[in-house]
Amino acid sequence: MENIERSQILKGYLMATLFYEPSTRTRLSFESAMKRLGGEVLTTENAREFSSAAKGETLEDTIRTVEGYSDIIVMRHFESGAAKRAAVTAGIPVINAGDGPGEHPTQALLDVYTIEREIGKLDGIKVGLVGDLANGRTVRSLAYLLAKYKDVKIYFVSPEVVKMKDDIKYYLTSKGVEWEESGDLMEVASKCDVVYQTRIQKERFGERFDLYEAARGKYIVNQDVLKVMQEHAVVMHPLPRLDEITVDVDGDPRAAYFRQAKNGLYIRMALLKVLLLGW
Amino acid sequence: MENIERSQILKGYLMATLFYEPSTRTRLSFESAMKRLGGEVLTTENAREFSSAAKGETLEDTIRTVEGYSDIIVMRHFESGAAKRAAVTAGIPVINAGDGPGEHPTQALLDVYTIEREIGKLDGIKVGLVGDLANGRTVRSLAYLLAKYKDVKIYFVSPEVVKMKDDIKYYLTSKGVEWEESGDLMEVASKCDVVYQTRIQKERFGERFDLYEAARGKYIVNQDVLKVMQEHAVVMHPLPRLDEITVDVDGDPRAAYFRQAKNGLYIRMALLKVLLLGW
Amino acid sequence: MENIERSQILKGYLMATLFYEPSTRTRLSFESAMKRLGGEVLTTENAREFSSAAKGETLEDTIRTVEGYSDIIVMRHFESGAAKRAAVTAGIPVINAGDGPGEHPTQALLDVYTIEREIGKLDGIKVGLVGDLANGRTVRSLAYLLAKYKDVKIYFVSPEVVKMKDDIKYYLTSKGVEWEESGDLMEVASKCDVVYQTRIQKERFGERFDLYEAARGKYIVNQDVLKVMQEHAVVMHPLPRLDEITVDVDGDPRAAYFRQAKNGLYIRMALLKVLLLGW
Repeated sequence: MENIERSQILKGYLMATLFYEPSTRTRLSFESAMKRLGGEVLTTENAREFSSAAKGETLEDTIRTVEGYSDIIVMRHFESGAAKRAAVTAGIPVINAGDGPGEHPTQALLDVYTIEREIGKLDGIKVGLVGDLANGRTVRSLAYLLAKYKDVKIYFVSPEVVKMKDDIKYYLTSKGVEWEESGDLMEVASKCDVVYQTRIQKERFGERFDLYEAARGKYIVNQDVLKVMQEHAVVMHPLPRLDEITVDVDGDPRAAYFRQAKNGLYIRMALLKVLLLGW
Repeated sequence: MENIERSQILKGYLMATLFYEPSTRTRLSFESAMKRLGGEVLTTENAREFSSAAKGETLEDTIRTVEGYSDIIVMRHFESGAAKRAAVTAGIPVINAGDGPGEHPTQALLDVYTIEREIGKLDGIKVGLVGDLANGRTVRSLAYLLAKYKDVKIYFVSPEVVKMKDDIKYYLTSKGVEWEESGDLMEVASKCDVVYQTRIQKERFGERFDLYEAARGKYIVNQDVLKVMQEHAVVMHPLPRLDEITVDVDGDPRAAYFRQAKNGLYIRMALLKVLLLGW
Repeated sequence: MENIERSQILKGYLMATLFYEPSTRTRLSFESAMKRLGGEVLTTENAREFSSAAKGETLEDTIRTVEGYSDIIVMRHFESGAAKRAAVTAGIPVINAGDGPGEHPTQALLDVYTIEREIGKLDGIKVGLVGDLANGRTVRSLAYLLAKYKDVKIYFVSPEVVKMKDDIKYYLTSKGVEWEESGDLMEVASKCDVVYQTRIQKERFGERFDLYEAARGKYIVNQDVLKVMQEHAVVMHPLPRLDEITVDVDGDPRAAYFRQAKNGLYIRMALLKVLLLGW
């Protein structure tokens, strides 16, 4: 047998992954994307603890140093706005791989790409956003991006303590996007093209285990939900998942979440190509 | 001067190292093997702490994601059976790089390869397994593998608290392998082709420092042991070593443990080649 | 667009970075250097915690193993003298990337290279070393290296508790290098070609926050200092910086510290090339 043919269009380019917050999934996805295109990677698994940041260096100084060593920076940070500060400082491209409670734009891109691939269209779709809508930056970014398409209808299905915040609701209304809140997952699931489930984020509840336990387990995607869903519809999830989608759903062709994760690779390959070589 | 000629047969292939338990030696050995063949690596130094596992994701979900990013997975885990669960889930090859108290098959392969290279044969050899035979998965796997050869004789030399367990003894007997327990390291060393020393694993004793101290230091391979060993015989050790082999043994040509470590590289190169390109 | 042309002179070579102490800046600089020349890297971000060292393995045993997996080792260690011990043990080149309070020779090389590039000469220059001269191994190494050039004059400007130690002073005197201590940063800055500022190292003060606070903030390089500096002079700093150089200095063309960091890349590329391929 022989070598498999793989693109080498980014050969000679070096990407630095500066992760101030652990995220193995996102990091490996970006590093795989770079290497699948023939590029190379400088990696930090936990920049927060193991770097000059611990000695009090500013993010701007770190960026000015790292830009000297690489051609593009992928940054995950625990503070909202950190990616923008890095991008303003750097003379090379900076990709935001999540900045605390702020944004996670490549996730939103891969979500939209997945919907397009799975459903065949974005205009006119009905999407149910389920679970932790207050803390989940992925659903916030997705709602924001869906507003760019026509005749989209969004349903919010979430426990009382983690409802979608008003800023997104106002934004959708201002863009003419129809939305409604519902407590009935079965009814929403029966009408939607996409059921987008999310994890209740325990780490955002602090000491309030009681609130966490109340929120968790209220809306579960299981065989009963699959039964009412349309044949062409899909279940999505940004992962990691706990038990908000039962494991017996995985075998159903409408379970799109692992295909969705794989799409993250393609979206990041495309992004790296465009940022380093242009359109 | 010019480039050294190195194989590129795995160019374009991507290996993911998922290490849920630290093992720099094993990880670097696998990563070196992959890179020596022209392949590329996605690495996690401590998947347990820095990944979605900390958020409660199942191993199966992690594997389903990582298999989308790579062509082969090398996994070290703290739970027995984890590698098998991963292999069942993944659509790409999974190599077990040690699963807790379970197995460490590539170590056993490199041990057998080392004996063959050093002694020139495997049939008819006499092997003394010394030290922590209860907790050391390497000696357990090695005993298991040696049973596949003819006329092998095995001596167990260990402190009372960490004796070889019955399952392996029964297995050897059922395969017609001769074995005996001995408290006399000198006598065993004088008869064996291979003296395979191991570290008393402090981390398995918990709070019982008294038991650990009693076990440690009972059987030391030193100049006295070398003196009674035959000229063609060798001392092996899976490393890391503390003081169960004295440093003055290192200079003796029969000290095979660093050659043994290097053989780990060759065995892993062969394994990666076979699993990705076939025989 | 197409691939950028980058050197591949180290293609096929493998560098292992063994970092027993975190230093993202230095590690990424070495790894970038290796990859910019077409070489490959085996990396450990925190060898101290995640390796056999935690189980009690000696440095010598670790080196004997790692040299089997790579062609060159870059080591950062928390103990003075560790790099020398590694180099004596290894059959492949070992580069000292800092050994505790000991030395940091590649930093000294890049500092001297930066002075040469920025000022155009090394003989006859006047250098002000400012800040933590007791604990900063970079200023100690730089003073040592400057003694190899002619007619160099060195000014030491530091808080009382972190003054330059006598061993370096004696050495300079023995080499005929003129030096003096001064408490007047403005006057020194007006005379020097290089103002080399350093961070007061909080981590070396232990519990004595009062001493730290007293030392810190005594000598700050700011716009006032820039005003008295000559036009051709430069400000250098090994980084990371806290507030000992104010941010508004960054925009001045005489602020050389980020160019200095970038020079670290070139110096390490040169070093890797020489050690692996010869002069």
